Amino acid sequence: MNVNGRRYRTIWARPGHDKVIQVIDQRQLPHKFVVEDLKSLDDVARAIKEMHVRGAGLIGAAAGFGMYLAALEAPKHRFDDFMLMAAEKLKGTRPTAVNLAVSVERQLKAMAAVSSTGGKISAALETAKEIADEDSDYCMRIGEHGLKMIRDISKKKKGKVVNILTHCNAGWLAFVDYGSATAPIYLAFGKGIKVHVWVDETRPWNQGSRLTAWELGQQGIPHTVIADNTGGHLMQSGLVDLVIVGSDRTTRTGDVANKIGTYLKALAAKDNNVPFYVALPSSSIDWNTRSGSDIPIEQRGEEEVKFAQGLSDGKIRKILLTPSSSRAANYGFDVTPARLVTGLITERGICQASEKGILKLFPERGGNG
Amino acid sequence: MNVNGRRYRTIWARPGHDKVIQVIDQRQLPHKFVVEDLKSLDDVARAIKEMHVRGAGLIGAAAGFGMYLAALEAPKHRFDDFMLMAAEKLKGTRPTAVNLAVSVERQLKAMAAVSSTGGKISAALETAKEIADEDSDYCMRIGEHGLKMIRDISKKKKGKVVNILTHCNAGWLAFVDYGSATAPIYLAFGKGIKVHVWVDETRPWNQGSRLTAWELGQQGIPHTVIADNTGGHLMQSGLVDLVIVGSDRTTRTGDVANKIGTYLKALAAKDNNVPFYVALPSSSIDWNTRSGSDIPIEQRGEEEVKFAQGLSDGKIRKILLTPSSSRAANYGFDVTPARLVTGLITERGICQASEKGILKLFPERGGNG
Repeated sequence: MNVNGRRYRTIWARPGHDKVIQVIDQRQLPHKFVVEDLKSLDDVARAIKEMHVRGAGLIGAAAGFGMYLAALEAPKHRFDDFMLMAAEKLKGTRPTAVNLAVSVERQLKAMAAVSSTGGKISAALETAKEIADEDSDYCMRIGEHGLKMIRDISKKKKGKVVNILTHCNAGWLAFVDYGSATAPIYLAFGKGIKVHVWVDETRPWNQGSRLTAWELGQQGIPHTVIADNTGGHLMQSGLVDLVIVGSDRTTRTGDVANKIGTYLKALAAKDNNVPFYVALPSSSIDWNTRSGSDIPIEQRGEEEVKFAQGLSDGKIRKILLTPSSSRAANYGFDVTPARLVTGLITERGICQASEKGILKLFPERGGNG
Repeated sequence: MNVNGRRYRTIWARPGHDKVIQVIDQRQLPHKFVVEDLKSLDDVARAIKEMHVRGAGLIGAAAGFGMYLAALEAPKHRFDDFMLMAAEKLKGTRPTAVNLAVSVERQLKAMAAVSSTGGKISAALETAKEIADEDSDYCMRIGEHGLKMIRDISKKKKGKVVNILTHCNAGWLAFVDYGSATAPIYLAFGKGIKVHVWVDETRPWNQGSRLTAWELGQQGIPHTVIADNTGGHLMQSGLVDLVIVGSDRTTRTGDVANKIGTYLKALAAKDNNVPFYVALPSSSIDWNTRSGSDIPIEQRGEEEVKFAQGLSDGKIRKILLTPSSSRAANYGFDVTPARLVTGLITERGICQASEKGILKLFPERGGNG
């Protein structure tokens, strides 16, 4: 998508020097736009863990490139062992998203199919690029399926503004391009449909006020930042036509792990008959898990809750919000049960959040259950 | 309650010089404890509007003292007109809480019963003190009724820690003393019952992380600050035994206007069978309103959402959280429908959140419906 009018993805191999992977350091947004070089497995693992890059699709793509950088570093005489270690290291960076494991396994498989070390390295680069391209392609298709829905609401409202609420950032910054929850919005806006986005700020890390607001602003899309507490009141007041969120991991039965607080918005949507959709590429479906309660929920450091980061006097600063002696807890995700989800928007179409619904779109997964 | 081991109320006439009213400037908490002098009607109106003081009970008490300071300023030849103007000014400072209007009307009535200007001024001071004492007394009684409930849960859990979630600050800082939601907790803790409080930070103004965490810490009560997004997940995980919140205005039918986000926690409590109680002195019941949708919801400036305030390098600073060009919306309250409320804890006991339940405790209000 566009940054200051120029086209970017969120991750790419440096043109003419593909031993360096480049990403946007999302910790600095919205105040500074910084492109960062990643040159090693350790660089990638740190970038994921410390959230220079985040979001289901993007950390999947980053793990793909991380495996490629690991292949460049791997000692020839114990290449396979090193790559298995790299795979574990990358999978361990964030516990909730399933894309990490999916990308890493795909890389191991691609490399196993080639015998020479040089061939393995080439296969890893090619596969990393494939993962990124596929992520971008899936998001675009999610956009097309979601677009129809927005267009229908717009027609029903006789062209009046369609108000969409989103939580966290399931935008292009969370993927390689377009985003999952935002892709339908970008396409609708491009077609001249009037849209306005309520952006949950998404404490504690503020993915909404930092990232979603910024990327919507860069594309010129009308939006309003709100405290996470606000969505229920907006829905009670008829000010939300549609909720679209992303997902870090969806079970084969349609339970959705997403950024903490998603469940509260799903409850409010249900209580007010507001359609609640989850947009996700199938790479974030965990085919081996049946119940949301089996998804591991990441707990992060308490400093993300006790402090907030932002701009003051031209400098990015952290401020202490609480008494210094108070403790804080920081759960990264919650699980929205399938019964609260109106539908899943995938790259193959929209389906019910149920095993039956999902398998209709992905019949090849029918055997795993 | 205690501040650094010394006993305070939140508002009082300066000892030996009762033409000055003193309050704790809550904008500076938890980082600085500042006692502020209020010397005029304008001082009080500004202190309420700009949230030096906030919370249903405390702004009711402040309005009482504000009417007294107005009486001191009122020109003798148009005393009554001036007092009517003062009444309107104070009622206009915050639209949602009903305590403002209740205190102001009570002052007008008290002054009308006396003929001399001097007598009116004395009546106003006396009434202001009465309002404050009554608020404190009601909160203590709310505490006693709520204590039984916490004791029951503690017994059921065989003495294990009782986990209580609260939203915003309905603590002593929101009243004159003890608080409404916190009073049962303070009493239970005093009786040696093991309690732990989940403190919603309560964006955008952070009443939870600033005020509730601070006042609980000052009394030595174990507590953990969480992002507002977190409560649903905690309830799903069995980590919340009880929710107690306050109320800025409760209709005679039991709909509860309280700090924005309360409704979302009530939905989660219902979905997880967690008891959801609202603690309120009857001064915050609006006997003339039947439906929560008739309660005016205050909208405040967008800067409270776009910025956060806290401590950095020993200074209280404001930081910008969003892109500077993004807009924000700031709704102060939402309405939790009575169907989601397990019970109301009032100074006369606990009742169902329904007209029938409320009138059982307040039969003298039966005629107004």
